[in-house]
Amino acid sequence: MDRWGIHGMTGRIYRPALPPTIVAAASAVGYEENRGRFGGEYDFHDDSDLFGADTWEHAESALGYTVFNLLLAKAKLSPKDVGLLLAGDLQNQCVASAEGYLSTGVPFLGLYGACSTACEGMVLGTMAINANSSLQNCAIVTTSHHCAAERQFRLPLEYGGQRTPTAQWTATAGGGFLLAAKGEGPRITAVMAGRMVDGGISDASNMGAAMAPAVADSLLAYFRESGESPDDFDRIITGDLGREGSEILAELCHTMGVPLGNRHEDCGAKIYLPEIQDDHCGGSGCGCCASVMAAHYLPALREGRLKRVLFMATGALMSPSSIQQRGHILGIAPIAVLEGEK
Amino acid sequence: MDRWGIHGMTGRIYRPALPPTIVAAASAVGYEENRGRFGGEYDFHDDSDLFGADTWEHAESALGYTVFNLLLAKAKLSPKDVGLLLAGDLQNQCVASAEGYLSTGVPFLGLYGACSTACEGMVLGTMAINANSSLQNCAIVTTSHHCAAERQFRLPLEYGGQRTPTAQWTATAGGGFLLAAKGEGPRITAVMAGRMVDGGISDASNMGAAMAPAVADSLLAYFRESGESPDDFDRIITGDLGREGSEILAELCHTMGVPLGNRHEDCGAKIYLPEIQDDHCGGSGCGCCASVMAAHYLPALREGRLKRVLFMATGALMSPSSIQQRGHILGIAPIAVLEGEK
Repeated sequence: MDRWGIHGMTGRIYRPALPPTIVAAASAVGYEENRGRFGGEYDFHDDSDLFGADTWEHAESALGYTVFNLLLAKAKLSPKDVGLLLAGDLQNQCVASAEGYLSTGVPFLGLYGACSTACEGMVLGTMAINANSSLQNCAIVTTSHHCAAERQFRLPLEYGGQRTPTAQWTATAGGGFLLAAKGEGPRITAVMAGRMVDGGISDASNMGAAMAPAVADSLLAYFRESGESPDDFDRIITGDLGREGSEILAELCHTMGVPLGNRHEDCGAKIYLPEIQDDHCGGSGCGCCASVMAAHYLPALREGRLKRVLFMATGALMSPSSIQQRGHILGIAPIAVLEGEK
Repeated sequence: MDRWGIHGMTGRIYRPALPPTIVAAASAVGYEENRGRFGGEYDFHDDSDLFGADTWEHAESALGYTVFNLLLAKAKLSPKDVGLLLAGDLQNQCVASAEGYLSTGVPFLGLYGACSTACEGMVLGTMAINANSSLQNCAIVTTSHHCAAERQFRLPLEYGGQRTPTAQWTATAGGGFLLAAKGEGPRITAVMAGRMVDGGISDASNMGAAMAPAVADSLLAYFRESGESPDDFDRIITGDLGREGSEILAELCHTMGVPLGNRHEDCGAKIYLPEIQDDHCGGSGCGCCASVMAAHYLPALREGRLKRVLFMATGALMSPSSIQQRGHILGIAPIAVLEGEK
């Protein structure tokens, strides 16, 4: 874990002078997600998974567009009131985002952090709002679509391939957040960019194991620099390690002397109901933790049921050709600390 | 051009309180680039285009790693002195960047803006340095590789396909910039995110035409909001419109009442020597304008031959499947204003 002497690297945590407020959040999901654990908490669901589109790829764009518009409706804004859109997805060249938000006309900067993109957006959005006092707000939207992702990264669904026990189910889901310089809502009080970590995993159906070392790397760097411990948080919420990755993370953190205990919850491990859904190791995808954060955890922060959480969306950096050519899937895990207003 | 009422949208230009200094820049290129117009100005070239790697995809990672290390050597820094790396490329899921910079251990945020990524990095890097006073510097590196890009987006080179007259040659090139809160060198005095524009082009071999409307959109928005005109710049440098896209841009700007005159230079149109190289419409790729900016224009700014330039890397947002499914290639063009120190 310390092969690059990371623990000596400080000054990584950014505590903004003006902690941006998440004045609105929105989520939209497909059929499996809505019959999962947080069914009914999402703002919108489409049981056809098509969101009115003609291909799975276009469906993801329509899903993102839906989330963006729900976000604006909640914030009572029109697209021209949004200063900046930070967005990304899993499709090659992030094209789901490009096509999804084209018609909004909002100034756009595309991100790619695989499933860590929601948190990457919070890192950069927090910086953007603090740097630029004329930027009133910044929207962050990330999406994923099960059917588009499966045929791109693995096999077309029509092939009916058997999934392995450690496989995760790419969620058909999107989540959006509107960060503002002022307003009411949970605030982002600290952010930290992650570093890429190669855990030596080359199995695209075992992304939890590929990402867990990067999560441990970021967590340990954060605790080392801040002097805080897991006890300082009500929850440590990871993106989509799934159940396999969550177990590995628990073991890594225990070994490194920072046991997480039952404070750790993983959006991927929780999004589905394994009793009734064949989710293998849990959910994944850019939209997995984004939708669960928007629909489930942010309301708890708003209503005072949670006070302070450490949020880490987790990314598995790979492509269809990188898997074919070498195969190590690199992990990355940026951090955002979210605090309720009550 | 004004279908979304953009010209009424103001507050987009960000003029940083602390204009970051580009304390170092580095470039590395392949065979065709080094025998092009700026041959001899790049820091490094490899006539094999392989950069010691075993596949074209890995060669792009090695190219990026080379640029990053040249950048650090020039700045007399080691990787642990770099606070943040913003990087991206054209490969699916930006995997060339992930693999290329893994071993540096630098905190990493991946960007995807197609060939506009260098300028997108300048926008976000300027914000990051202004937001976070403990962030001493921020590296931006972008790469592209002709052979990796061709087989991903179009056809494998071995197929020997005929290229159309408007096709651009994806450059095997990378460019890097080290932005710092203090130091000597050209400064970034203003940045602006671009908006996506659909020019109705679906031909992946005519990206100049696809991007020119987005460039005009950004330029007009910048001039409208700033009250400046093309006369306020020694050069207006675009990324890789190529010769076709440059002609379209000239016509669009003339029609809109903001003629660019001969201040406009396009890195894609200039990188090769059409007299001796079969480049069709010019160069393209994330590394095209990044390497030309690092090798050719920044030295002119450092030495006082240029005082103030408007730099717009230009991105064509598309993927292999988006071309197959619908085909409109969206354009985007963020802006960075660079000023010499003399």
